Amino acid sequence: MIKAIFLMQADDSKGLLASAVDFFYGKGFNILHCQQHTDSYEQRFFMRIELDATQMSMTRKELEDGFSELACRLGFEWSCHWSDYRMRMAILVSKTSHCLYDLISRQLEGELSCEIPLIISNHPDMERVANQFRIPYYYFPIGDDKEAQEMKIRALLKRFDIDLVVLARYMQILSPAFTEEWKERIINIHHAFLPAFQGANPYLRAYQRGVKMIGATAHYASEDLDQGPIIEQDVVRVNHELTPNGLREVGKDCERRVLANAVKAHLEHRIIVYKNRTIVFTVER
Amino acid sequence: MIKAIFLMQADDSKGLLASAVDFFYGKGFNILHCQQHTDSYEQRFFMRIELDATQMSMTRKELEDGFSELACRLGFEWSCHWSDYRMRMAILVSKTSHCLYDLISRQLEGELSCEIPLIISNHPDMERVANQFRIPYYYFPIGDDKEAQEMKIRALLKRFDIDLVVLARYMQILSPAFTEEWKERIINIHHAFLPAFQGANPYLRAYQRGVKMIGATAHYASEDLDQGPIIEQDVVRVNHELTPNGLREVGKDCERRVLANAVKAHLEHRIIVYKNRTIVFTVER
Amino acid sequence: MIKAIFLMQADDSKGLLASAVDFFYGKGFNILHCQQHTDSYEQRFFMRIELDATQMSMTRKELEDGFSELACRLGFEWSCHWSDYRMRMAILVSKTSHCLYDLISRQLEGELSCEIPLIISNHPDMERVANQFRIPYYYFPIGDDKEAQEMKIRALLKRFDIDLVVLARYMQILSPAFTEEWKERIINIHHAFLPAFQGANPYLRAYQRGVKMIGATAHYASEDLDQGPIIEQDVVRVNHELTPNGLREVGKDCERRVLANAVKAHLEHRIIVYKNRTIVFTVER
Amino acid sequence: MIKAIFLMQADDSKGLLASAVDFFYGKGFNILHCQQHTDSYEQRFFMRIELDATQMSMTRKELEDGFSELACRLGFEWSCHWSDYRMRMAILVSKTSHCLYDLISRQLEGELSCEIPLIISNHPDMERVANQFRIPYYYFPIGDDKEAQEMKIRALLKRFDIDLVVLARYMQILSPAFTEEWKERIINIHHAFLPAFQGANPYLRAYQRGVKMIGATAHYASEDLDQGPIIEQDVVRVNHELTPNGLREVGKDCERRVLANAVKAHLEHRIIVYKNRTIVFTVER
Repeated sequence: MIKAIFLMQADDSKGLLASAVDFFYGKGFNILHCQQHTDSYEQRFFMRIELDATQMSMTRKELEDGFSELACRLGFEWSCHWSDYRMRMAILVSKTSHCLYDLISRQLEGELSCEIPLIISNHPDMERVANQFRIPYYYFPIGDDKEAQEMKIRALLKRFDIDLVVLARYMQILSPAFTEEWKERIINIHHAFLPAFQGANPYLRAYQRGVKMIGATAHYASEDLDQGPIIEQDVVRVNHELTPNGLREVGKDCERRVLANAVKAHLEHRIIVYKNRTIVFTVER
Repeated sequence: MIKAIFLMQADDSKGLLASAVDFFYGKGFNILHCQQHTDSYEQRFFMRIELDATQMSMTRKELEDGFSELACRLGFEWSCHWSDYRMRMAILVSKTSHCLYDLISRQLEGELSCEIPLIISNHPDMERVANQFRIPYYYFPIGDDKEAQEMKIRALLKRFDIDLVVLARYMQILSPAFTEEWKERIINIHHAFLPAFQGANPYLRAYQRGVKMIGATAHYASEDLDQGPIIEQDVVRVNHELTPNGLREVGKDCERRVLANAVKAHLEHRIIVYKNRTIVFTVER
Repeated sequence: MIKAIFLMQADDSKGLLASAVDFFYGKGFNILHCQQHTDSYEQRFFMRIELDATQMSMTRKELEDGFSELACRLGFEWSCHWSDYRMRMAILVSKTSHCLYDLISRQLEGELSCEIPLIISNHPDMERVANQFRIPYYYFPIGDDKEAQEMKIRALLKRFDIDLVVLARYMQILSPAFTEEWKERIINIHHAFLPAFQGANPYLRAYQRGVKMIGATAHYASEDLDQGPIIEQDVVRVNHELTPNGLREVGKDCERRVLANAVKAHLEHRIIVYKNRTIVFTVER
Repeated sequence: MIKAIFLMQADDSKGLLASAVDFFYGKGFNILHCQQHTDSYEQRFFMRIELDATQMSMTRKELEDGFSELACRLGFEWSCHWSDYRMRMAILVSKTSHCLYDLISRQLEGELSCEIPLIISNHPDMERVANQFRIPYYYFPIGDDKEAQEMKIRALLKRFDIDLVVLARYMQILSPAFTEEWKERIINIHHAFLPAFQGANPYLRAYQRGVKMIGATAHYASEDLDQGPIIEQDVVRVNHELTPNGLREVGKDCERRVLANAVKAHLEHRIIVYKNRTIVFTVER
């Protein structure tokens, strides 16, 4: 079955839901799934709708153009996605393998529906993993000129028609130009429960503060370090027995899980961003 | 604000969502919240819709009659609820106080929107708690004639216009006549993660089986012991250090929480039952 | 059974465990439970030992003096506690009842082994709760002279021979003199997952940051606001559906549970503080 | 650092802890970590002790013989393990790869300290995974003679000097002869929260029962299907949106995590079995 997925948001007003539902119903679509959320604090309306688009009486362009007209009238910001397109995901890593292995194996098992055309790193260490799975590996050391290194990465992402960049423990701060160009298309995993322990060495600081749980946070990268919209978080209970290194080891599992869930939500077009918050619709399976 | 809440279900077919949304929109209602779920395994459609009914251009009866017509045509089973009616909840207990205290204090704090007109028990022990909160307490010992005791309870529930019966660790099996009369209106808390450890002494059996988590399950009481539709469950991690009594103590917190959440979902008209399963819609706050 | 509980800590060196165990064994005690932890990062040794003291061949003073000698030789900081003494706990509240109800009902059910001789507040609101349970209630409005108000509280705590002060959502900052006098004997509940959202309005800030879990933290009050040693934390998963008020409501349950667990650990002499961290030994039941 | 780890259990009596501690201290060992548990319900004593064995004044045999004498006198069942021996783990699989990938990648990242000399299967499907990691793959189809197939596996395990067998979703019931020969050395992952949903198709049955959480259980395989001693369990919250297939997908993550934790505990000699229960000591890191 081919599905069309519409994500929309607008300032709240009467009749948004009914108008949108009516539009698709009027065009003869079977609505597979419809989720709506009104944020009463922000007076903002959000919606995700999933249509059976296997047999359409019009072209995709006609549908999108038709909806565009309605959206214009109702003030919707929106996007449309088609289930028969597999997104192309680039993975950036530094030296640790746990998130990398996890993402690749989930993609191979069909949990993450995407292509992984390349892996990029500022270190040579992970090439062995890339080779095991026959994924091209690009090694760009940082050296003296960080900007030049970043330009190479950005050029490569374009050349490979990448849709989503995943920072799977890529321990570098990206420039504002990079995050702006790839706004809401770069997912980073931070190894702490944000906004606690932003920045470097979160496990050591978690140890020193004596927290009883450690966490991980997946978020869209933005100009401000570790401050972009949060997509997913989880925690794991710890106790006094764990040294900073122990916390680091225990946290790996949490990082893997949180990053994979965030990437999955993005690939399934379940995320809408408003201000610095995300609406993440669950998906029926 | 006065709200009207409609719960509906039907065998799935095209256009159910659009028809329902259209009906309310056509009558001039602002739809506050709309949640829909299609169970693709059962081919069954479920929906909860919340309307602003503060200023209606018709009577409540007219609205319900109007919807009844549509429902008839589309095959909906449905119910309608009004937010200005406070449900009346009876609590049945035996000898332990933890769930009783918890329910009463949550009601006092406004977490549970209901009246508690009476507490009923087969033991005298909890009268002191009832007195503290000035809630009438009815003590019906079981003695030789369990049926007679149950008839007294059922009569009392009627006399007090009760809407919901909560078994807050009431350690008696109800007769089929009772559960049938109060179908989907009795909530029981079972002190185990059902279907594990149905029946008596779950904590001892959990100890003997050496499980690493214990749980609690809130469900609608049905004819078959511990087999009614599950509303809510939760677990807590345990280890080898806990004896059966230790498990019992640790489990209390889980029982409290699970029962309170289930009762809350019922009072807020968020539950639809189909076969032996519940759809529990979350509510926006 | 009467139990003696020893808590000890020292810079790590060879033979600490053996020496301590030997001491108690040599005096003829049955060791009910022995827990030891060496923090390899800090090179610090911690130990909790529980003895059967029902039939002792010496006085309590003799035992403590004897151990004091050993402790002096080995460099132990230590304390000794006797299970037949019920600690006296004062509860300080402002206007919300959820933690107050929870603590009182747990004490009544025997989950918290202590006396609650009084409740103190800067508002009159909670007097009704105190009355329900016939606990004396002291209302000290803050007015112009906060220091004077605090002096009254501190005098009262002395007069009532209080051992532990619990801030059950007491929305006032204590003076350094107060926290110093009651060092490691005041437990506060903060309604966020520290160190995230220190200070005021954590639920609003959690909403604005768009976190996917909210939490609560129980800690010993220290001079620096929300920075004392953490005893217990927990979180609850939330999503975009919750407004700041919704978060506040959902968080209550977490606050209750976390505070109760921290108080319980303190009452059972399971906590050792070192630097700004706690070692919380679990207890077998 | 080379460590010696002793696991011991005995019927409880006075002085067991002191005698054991004394023994090792008297031989000049630094005790790195000592954990003790007395099950007051079973009157059974359990202990794990970790020694620094880098510079010993005796041979390993002398130490073990010496302890054997003491153990004999005190009634200990015991075992001794040396940290410089890497256990050899065989993985058995059928057709799904998620646990297999997870175990291998954790071993490569150093989370699981062991060798993986071979993978065995009753299907050819997972050979591609084995090849990626250059691990020998043995494919034994079951055909008409299940006993013969099992004999081949058992022979192979011997030939490869295997210490631990992990059933990473190996969908076959092992014979009593096999489980007896490998008692407490076969770890199975069951895709349900045992004792709920023992046997086949747990996800379908979980759907039908309408549970609100699904789980996974790692246990030592015993003669009775899904009834061996439980090592580790975890659950994940689900709701009405998940079909049986959806539950299966969501459950994978839980299976991976639970199996990996159980295997890790076994490899680190942290598990003692008594009756049908496990004592799993945590380890300081």
